[in-house]
Amino acid sequence: MRGEPLDAETIVSATEEVLRRHGPEKTTVLDVARLLGVSHGSVYRHFPSKAALREAVIRRWLDRVREDFAAAARSRESSPPDRLRGLLTSMFAAKWAKAKEDPELFATFRVLAAEHSSVSSGHVAFLIAQISAIVVDGIAGGDFAAGEPEVIARAVLNATSRFHDPMHAAEWCSPEVEAESEAVVSLILDGIRAR
Amino acid sequence: MRGEPLDAETIVSATEEVLRRHGPEKTTVLDVARLLGVSHGSVYRHFPSKAALREAVIRRWLDRVREDFAAAARSRESSPPDRLRGLLTSMFAAKWAKAKEDPELFATFRVLAAEHSSVSSGHVAFLIAQISAIVVDGIAGGDFAAGEPEVIARAVLNATSRFHDPMHAAEWCSPEVEAESEAVVSLILDGIRAR
Repeated sequence: MRGEPLDAETIVSATEEVLRRHGPEKTTVLDVARLLGVSHGSVYRHFPSKAALREAVIRRWLDRVREDFAAAARSRESSPPDRLRGLLTSMFAAKWAKAKEDPELFATFRVLAAEHSSVSSGHVAFLIAQISAIVVDGIAGGDFAAGEPEVIARAVLNATSRFHDPMHAAEWCSPEVEAESEAVVSLILDGIRAR
Repeated sequence: MRGEPLDAETIVSATEEVLRRHGPEKTTVLDVARLLGVSHGSVYRHFPSKAALREAVIRRWLDRVREDFAAAARSRESSPPDRLRGLLTSMFAAKWAKAKEDPELFATFRVLAAEHSSVSSGHVAFLIAQISAIVVDGIAGGDFAAGEPEVIARAVLNATSRFHDPMHAAEWCSPEVEAESEAVVSLILDGIRAR
C-alpha cells in the first residue's frame, strides 16, 4: 500500500501506464489498482467505470495538445492562411507522432472516437472553434471569401479526415503522407481564398 | 449436383450469395461449393483460394459501378467543374447505397481495402485516372488553374476520403453526410478553379 493519499491525477497516470502495456481491450480497473497497490474500491471512488478511466487518460492528452494547437491558431503576427496551415499541420503532426510513439494509447483514442464519446466529440468541437476563429479573421481582413465560418470550418476538418481521423492511423506510416497532406491543405486554402 | 457446366461467373454469383449470408470472415470455399452442389475441387479449378473468390466478387461489383462513374466523367455537354461534381457525387452515392443495402458485401470490400489488395488499389488508380482526365480538360479550357493533373486528382480523392473510403461506412448513415459532402466538394471545386 502506498503512503500518499490517492488523487485522480495519480490514477490517470497509472491507467496510462496500464493501457500502454495491455491496450484498451484488456485493461481493467483491477490492473490499475494493482499497479498502485490499492484496492479497486479506491480507484472506483474517483472513477465510476473502466470507460471513465479511459476517457480521463485521453482527455488529459488532448488537453495538452490543445494548448499547442491554440497557440498555432492565435499567433497574431501571421496571416489567417498561414495560421490555418499552421494549425492543421501541427494537428496532423501531433496525431502522427502519438500513433507512432504510443500506439496502445492511440488505439484507446480510436476506440473512443468510434464510440462517439463525449471526449472525442468535445475535441472535434474544439477544433471547429479554432478553425472558425481563423476563418472569421480571414473573412474580416479580406484574405478569405465570405461564407458561414462554422460551415467552412467543418468542411476543412472533413476534407482533412484522412490525416487526423484515428481510423486512418495505419496509413500514416506511408512515406507519401506528408506530401499528400500538403497537397490537400493547399487545395483547401485555395478553396477558401478571396477572389 | 447441377446439370450445367460450372463457369467462373456462376461461382462468383454463388460466392456473393454466401458472403451476404455469412460475411467475409466466416465464408469458406466449402460453403460456396455446397450452395452450388459441387465438390470444392470444382471451385478450386476456377479460383485458387478464398481470397481470390472474395476479390472476384468485389471486382465484378466495381466493374459495374465504374461504368456509371465513367459516364458521369465523360458527358461532354457539361463543363469540367460540373463533370467533376457529377463524378464525385455518383461515386459517394454508389458507396453509400452499397454500404446500406448490402452491408456484408461492403464489409468484404472494407477488408480488401484494408489489405491493400490489387482490386482495391486498381479501383483507386481508376478513380485517379477519371479525375485526372476531367482536370486536364478543365485546365485546357481555362476553368481550372494550371497544375499537375495527377497530383490534383490525388488531392481531390484524399480530401473526400470521409465520403468514399469504406473505413468511414459507419458515418454514412448520419443525416448530415450529404450536406457535409456537398460542402467539401464545393470547397475543392473553389480550390482548383482558375483565378
